[in-house]
Amino acid sequence: MSTSFFQDMLGSIAERGRYLLDHPATRPVSDRIRRTGSAKPVETIETLSRSLLSGRGEASGVALARQVLDFYASLPVEERIAFFRLLARDFGPDQQRLRDAWSDYDKTPTPKNLQRLLRAVEPPRQELFRRLNLAPGGTGALVTMRQDLLEHGGNDADLASVDDDLVHLLYSWFNRGFLMMRRITWSSPADILERIIRYEAVHTIQDWDDLRRRVQPPDRRCYAFFHPSLFDEPLIFVEVALTKDIPSSIQEILADGRKVLAAEQATTAVFYSISNCQPGLRGISFGNFLIKQVVEDLSRDLPSLKTFVTLSPAPGFGRWLERIAEDPTEFGLEGLDTAPLALLENPDWHRDTTVAEQLWPLLMSLAAAYYLRAKTKSGQPLDPVARFHLGNGARLERLNWLGDTSAKGVREAAGLMVNYLYDLNTIEANHEAYANQGMVAAAHAIQRQIRDLTSNAAKEARHV
Amino acid sequence: MSTSFFQDMLGSIAERGRYLLDHPATRPVSDRIRRTGSAKPVETIETLSRSLLSGRGEASGVALARQVLDFYASLPVEERIAFFRLLARDFGPDQQRLRDAWSDYDKTPTPKNLQRLLRAVEPPRQELFRRLNLAPGGTGALVTMRQDLLEHGGNDADLASVDDDLVHLLYSWFNRGFLMMRRITWSSPADILERIIRYEAVHTIQDWDDLRRRVQPPDRRCYAFFHPSLFDEPLIFVEVALTKDIPSSIQEILADGRKVLAAEQATTAVFYSISNCQPGLRGISFGNFLIKQVVEDLSRDLPSLKTFVTLSPAPGFGRWLERIAEDPTEFGLEGLDTAPLALLENPDWHRDTTVAEQLWPLLMSLAAAYYLRAKTKSGQPLDPVARFHLGNGARLERLNWLGDTSAKGVREAAGLMVNYLYDLNTIEANHEAYANQGMVAAAHAIQRQIRDLTSNAAKEARHV
Amino acid sequence: MSTSFFQDMLGSIAERGRYLLDHPATRPVSDRIRRTGSAKPVETIETLSRSLLSGRGEASGVALARQVLDFYASLPVEERIAFFRLLARDFGPDQQRLRDAWSDYDKTPTPKNLQRLLRAVEPPRQELFRRLNLAPGGTGALVTMRQDLLEHGGNDADLASVDDDLVHLLYSWFNRGFLMMRRITWSSPADILERIIRYEAVHTIQDWDDLRRRVQPPDRRCYAFFHPSLFDEPLIFVEVALTKDIPSSIQEILADGRKVLAAEQATTAVFYSISNCQPGLRGISFGNFLIKQVVEDLSRDLPSLKTFVTLSPAPGFGRWLERIAEDPTEFGLEGLDTAPLALLENPDWHRDTTVAEQLWPLLMSLAAAYYLRAKTKSGQPLDPVARFHLGNGARLERLNWLGDTSAKGVREAAGLMVNYLYDLNTIEANHEAYANQGMVAAAHAIQRQIRDLTSNAAKEARHV
Amino acid sequence: MSTSFFQDMLGSIAERGRYLLDHPATRPVSDRIRRTGSAKPVETIETLSRSLLSGRGEASGVALARQVLDFYASLPVEERIAFFRLLARDFGPDQQRLRDAWSDYDKTPTPKNLQRLLRAVEPPRQELFRRLNLAPGGTGALVTMRQDLLEHGGNDADLASVDDDLVHLLYSWFNRGFLMMRRITWSSPADILERIIRYEAVHTIQDWDDLRRRVQPPDRRCYAFFHPSLFDEPLIFVEVALTKDIPSSIQEILADGRKVLAAEQATTAVFYSISNCQPGLRGISFGNFLIKQVVEDLSRDLPSLKTFVTLSPAPGFGRWLERIAEDPTEFGLEGLDTAPLALLENPDWHRDTTVAEQLWPLLMSLAAAYYLRAKTKSGQPLDPVARFHLGNGARLERLNWLGDTSAKGVREAAGLMVNYLYDLNTIEANHEAYANQGMVAAAHAIQRQIRDLTSNAAKEARHV
Repeated sequence: MSTSFFQDMLGSIAERGRYLLDHPATRPVSDRIRRTGSAKPVETIETLSRSLLSGRGEASGVALARQVLDFYASLPVEERIAFFRLLARDFGPDQQRLRDAWSDYDKTPTPKNLQRLLRAVEPPRQELFRRLNLAPGGTGALVTMRQDLLEHGGNDADLASVDDDLVHLLYSWFNRGFLMMRRITWSSPADILERIIRYEAVHTIQDWDDLRRRVQPPDRRCYAFFHPSLFDEPLIFVEVALTKDIPSSIQEILADGRKVLAAEQATTAVFYSISNCQPGLRGISFGNFLIKQVVEDLSRDLPSLKTFVTLSPAPGFGRWLERIAEDPTEFGLEGLDTAPLALLENPDWHRDTTVAEQLWPLLMSLAAAYYLRAKTKSGQPLDPVARFHLGNGARLERLNWLGDTSAKGVREAAGLMVNYLYDLNTIEANHEAYANQGMVAAAHAIQRQIRDLTSNAAKEARHV
Repeated sequence: MSTSFFQDMLGSIAERGRYLLDHPATRPVSDRIRRTGSAKPVETIETLSRSLLSGRGEASGVALARQVLDFYASLPVEERIAFFRLLARDFGPDQQRLRDAWSDYDKTPTPKNLQRLLRAVEPPRQELFRRLNLAPGGTGALVTMRQDLLEHGGNDADLASVDDDLVHLLYSWFNRGFLMMRRITWSSPADILERIIRYEAVHTIQDWDDLRRRVQPPDRRCYAFFHPSLFDEPLIFVEVALTKDIPSSIQEILADGRKVLAAEQATTAVFYSISNCQPGLRGISFGNFLIKQVVEDLSRDLPSLKTFVTLSPAPGFGRWLERIAEDPTEFGLEGLDTAPLALLENPDWHRDTTVAEQLWPLLMSLAAAYYLRAKTKSGQPLDPVARFHLGNGARLERLNWLGDTSAKGVREAAGLMVNYLYDLNTIEANHEAYANQGMVAAAHAIQRQIRDLTSNAAKEARHV
Repeated sequence: MSTSFFQDMLGSIAERGRYLLDHPATRPVSDRIRRTGSAKPVETIETLSRSLLSGRGEASGVALARQVLDFYASLPVEERIAFFRLLARDFGPDQQRLRDAWSDYDKTPTPKNLQRLLRAVEPPRQELFRRLNLAPGGTGALVTMRQDLLEHGGNDADLASVDDDLVHLLYSWFNRGFLMMRRITWSSPADILERIIRYEAVHTIQDWDDLRRRVQPPDRRCYAFFHPSLFDEPLIFVEVALTKDIPSSIQEILADGRKVLAAEQATTAVFYSISNCQPGLRGISFGNFLIKQVVEDLSRDLPSLKTFVTLSPAPGFGRWLERIAEDPTEFGLEGLDTAPLALLENPDWHRDTTVAEQLWPLLMSLAAAYYLRAKTKSGQPLDPVARFHLGNGARLERLNWLGDTSAKGVREAAGLMVNYLYDLNTIEANHEAYANQGMVAAAHAIQRQIRDLTSNAAKEARHV
Repeated sequence: MSTSFFQDMLGSIAERGRYLLDHPATRPVSDRIRRTGSAKPVETIETLSRSLLSGRGEASGVALARQVLDFYASLPVEERIAFFRLLARDFGPDQQRLRDAWSDYDKTPTPKNLQRLLRAVEPPRQELFRRLNLAPGGTGALVTMRQDLLEHGGNDADLASVDDDLVHLLYSWFNRGFLMMRRITWSSPADILERIIRYEAVHTIQDWDDLRRRVQPPDRRCYAFFHPSLFDEPLIFVEVALTKDIPSSIQEILADGRKVLAAEQATTAVFYSISNCQPGLRGISFGNFLIKQVVEDLSRDLPSLKTFVTLSPAPGFGRWLERIAEDPTEFGLEGLDTAPLALLENPDWHRDTTVAEQLWPLLMSLAAAYYLRAKTKSGQPLDPVARFHLGNGARLERLNWLGDTSAKGVREAAGLMVNYLYDLNTIEANHEAYANQGMVAAAHAIQRQIRDLTSNAAKEARHV
């Protein structure tokens, strides 16, 4: 019951927050046109910001923070960026004070001198951001500020410091300990569901009926993280299918009219889509925590579930195949007969059974090579989705031929989809081997597929 | 309605949080005896902490954080302090890396070099604390850690750095923007009301009937701040009486059987008690924000309210009178006849009308001097309650003779109570004058009272 | 806060209720196919019903009630009707007992004998229905039963008694005092919004975007009544537009892209659609209460609102015009030149300005006659919507030429829409005059329009 | 989530309801003094009531109902009773109409004539009560009305009809299907907990600490029924102890400082107190439903629980012993040596071990006789608690010597307490045997105890 008290308490915040949803400060420039400025001519965003950092800020912090945010919201995009430049230039550490603090610390590194150094080195704009957060809706406004900075700040090296400071705070404030996971269902508020439709980034949700197919049937789940200060804005969400087998195709998951399974009969939970929602939080990672929380909760609620697996796209595979076709030696595939790859130029190649059968062994072996061999300059897997799941400690479990026959799937990945397995017993070891030695955890079958390619690169065609 | 969704969402956190209330990590050492350790012999809190900061922490952060917190909770107080010493010694900045970063920044203070410097100077224990917050209940556990450190850390200078880092994080996490104000009523959960009884620090709540008299009548209010991660732990609360006049005595406020006023008929809101609840958050100030939020909310809900004022104790006045009695010259009161002050030695002096009348003019003038003249070495008012309200921009409005005739009130303040006025129109100016020039905003009447004393110090007795 | 306790408490009911939404007993026959019966061969719905009314019912009422409802839900429609026939025949009052009770009461009408008579006359099926309500979801199941009875019971006079008894109970249980009004917004749960789309009976909601236009803008409102035992099933809802003038056309209300008004600037609240949701509650009227509650709430929340008015269809006007065209003497319109009415046969007549101008004076006068003169055999207005609003005490305020130019509006009402005014000062007097003397409260302008018709029926054409 | 919507919806009712808690109509006369009447001189409660039943009631029912309730609330108790007399006399069935309806029905008992008869026989005051329920808070006001009637109506036979009609409605409205069971904990709102303290009727709750001992420990439970229209007024509640054995003494249950059990280790749930809260609902039974719901819920949540049993008082045993002492032949105990019963006159007899040992065999055998033999005139067990539990289908399981050594327990029951066993497998059979043949289900041991008494009534003393 004090649950209720707590809920009620937070409800009042939500009411307050809702009001702020309409607040201009909470919308990025790109969504709005400039408001006709009614701010007093004397005050500028600079004078207001300086006041907020001064004694006035101590007496009337909440009101001043609100004014700064209002002012910011009224600025056109170029003046917003000018404000960031001001912060970069004038709100950094005081050089003299920093030098003095260093000098003392360098001589005698006592706790007290360390503290002085820490205070001297922290750019005052960090405290400015913290004080902006005094205002209701401040957290959302700061997330929007960072979105503006990322979208419109260009490559201005000076602005990097401002972004560093924003990230430093947001990383601390969006700590997993402050996030709440919540199941999204067909009884969720329509405005939240509408955001799910809008933010879905992997397999587009066509309309409300499509959405309903993903959240209402007993063998479908959707979970999202929320933050108390962005109360009805999901931060990230994942869509899950409960099945009896590891699926090999996204079309069977999304099909309309498919046979529905009772949740208690499912043995496998399939993460088939995960989407970030807040551009202003780019680089602050929630996916790892979300997936593991869902695994934990589903394991407890549905003991029959034994396998937790993704059905994931291979977004870089198509581009990589083009590079292979141009020059197989780039990836050590000397002697590979790349001629069949020309067949991929026809976007409907996969509908022609003969062509598909001809390509199958080559593409599957190349897929194995793509995952196990193709690396970025820094030695990580070329595929960004692979980097995410392998970094989480998952294992590459299976390559699925024609797993996604949508136009996008064929274009970007020659139809390839893959499964990553989340096995709580091996997650730590996988993660460590990956992080320390760059080892890609993969099922034996996939490792064998690549061996075929390398030993017999030239003879592939025969396998058909 | 999405309010409900939000409430519901947070309700699940509350459930989780409730579970953690029983978690040993969320209780300070002083509340418990040592649990018989069942932790594996190999792992120590040091190895676990190092793991949490390493790659393992990235793969299994939530679980590892929980283990560290469990381990900490199982330690006796001296080993907890030993853990803090370890953090002070071994989890500070890497000296070589810091020196290199400084050297580069000193030569070319680019954003990139500033970022490197910031990273090099931040003690790794800060990140350790952030990662401990991954675990459910982590925030509460960190607040408890700081309480342990304050209570049992002694004057160990090395531990100051650990405290600095904890304060740095808690200051950021308990930002006003994350707090929720909530009214406390007779319909609030009993466990929260029980905490109100326990935490009341100014005018002790005797029992449940006394509590009810403070929260149930229509002319009484109580408000508290809460934090989403300490869901049913109030951080600070304030008690308010709605009246028709500025009250001059706490006993009339707390009286049983007094006449109740309809809220709509009140013109004055009196803050008569404000208490902090969390020793682990000492130094992170909420009172200013709470009072101003209550002023704002009450103004909106009850437009008939025109005056916002406190009825406050004068906790240092009694001690100061003793010093005056010993040596009036210490505070520039040469020539003052301090003989009558000897009457105060009888704890029942105030019941004797003759004595009281004799003391009245002297004590009231001395009270004015106490507030307007008596300063600490750093030039601030001697009275801690005065420092708080004046720092908030309030004005010293009235001195109340025999405002608190409880044993404590007579002993600590010779019965004196004072009113501070919160006038939103002058708060900023008061604050600035106080912060910059040390000026104490006070009603003219009080300034006059002190003039009496100084011009006629020796003739005081005549006034009776 | 005990609000929260209460909400929480009811939340648990909702959880339980949700489960029952999938319960077959809560769906009418028409929505389902027969389930393969797994009920024990020995028990029939009759034996179970008799048990429920007997001592077994007292010991295990909840479980038995659930069994009866399950059994009922498994029956095909004809067996359901057979069950109702059984109730009509065998669960009526015991004739001998009734005769005895009457005989005693007739001799000595004491309270005790009245009580005996009341008990003897009440059909046992009423108690059966009350006991069926012991089971979770029972209320919903009984509403469904009545829907079955109305849809499939035909004109069987014997079943009238069963319907009487159901209505008697439902009328008592769905008393206004038990209903809760709730605003429907774009943050409402999607499943409830989906029902709003489905149940809208006046101006079809095309899709989710159309729905959003009716619930999200600040100048739009939607309110519904709910019952605690049918927790997420709206019983009735009304759609409201906030405007600056009394609107004359539904198309301007529903237009996409129209200019949105700030709620505080509106002076007029327009009820433009009201729909019942539960066929099983036919004849139990909620509309009167809903409209008046909305008037009360909106008046309080938006003091600028001065006018409460409907924009209503005239569903019987088209049919009545046909009858006039055939024989104007039926309604005392001897001598009326009905020839122009033939123009209405072209469904696009209203798009031809010349035709429309020609018809305008005749149709408007006839409309006035339709509302003020055309009566049913029992002396009530012919138009069912008029009967509803006049019965509520509203006044016929304005006739709107081409107020609804949708195909349906032109076909059923020659495009006519009307406004009824809800003026709290005259509601009672209007109602009494209407109920007792059949007087239709109407604006003077409308009364004048009819005078034109009757005095100059033959000269109408000149007015163009 | 639509749970939340539903909760939210009901929250608004609760707010409305809370307001009404202060409404005079919701308090019984006995709690208040008369308000100085400000009702218009012309209207009386009679004219208002007649208006409410008339056409005016249809137009403005909610407002009129509120007026009647306000008026009623302003009346002193004697005028309230006068109002009931008016209802008895003037709001009964219309005799002529009833006679006509009977006459028609008697000739041809068609459904239509049955309906007419039902309508003619129903006293109009029933509809008046239903319309009073239109007003917010109406349900509570009607419950209060009945409380007034019961407390102050005396033995006036004419008022019986009014009570019949109230009971008829309340029985229907407080149907189990509309009640919500809710666990009461230490996090429940203080105002509800305060009511629990006040309403506890079996084992007085001394203070808040005593209450806490009954609701906070993990091996204690408290559950209550609530009704949506009396939102924070419990109707009935039961207190439960989770134990490892069937307890034989209430003092061990209520002891302060006792050893607490983890809920998961308990095998037995003990209902040790059950109290009705609303005098106005006397005779409408909830206890049976509450106990069975708790059994069901606890069985599901704590599978280790195998035994559900009460620890109950024997409130009539003391009085019965006095009657036996006077004349053992009244209960067929000819030849019984009742001399030892004189020892009971000393209220401290049970503290004297010798006396207690002497009395033990006699009292235990007499206790068995009390439960198995002592009957009311209508053949039911003399003990009211026994009638309740046996009527629910429970079995008398054990007699506990000195189970309640409180002053009240010794005085009313010579210290006897008993356990009734709720075994879901035998509840129906027990109930039927009890209801139809008056058979008391009792453990063999108890049946044996009585055999001892009857065969050896005179030799009892030897058994010591």
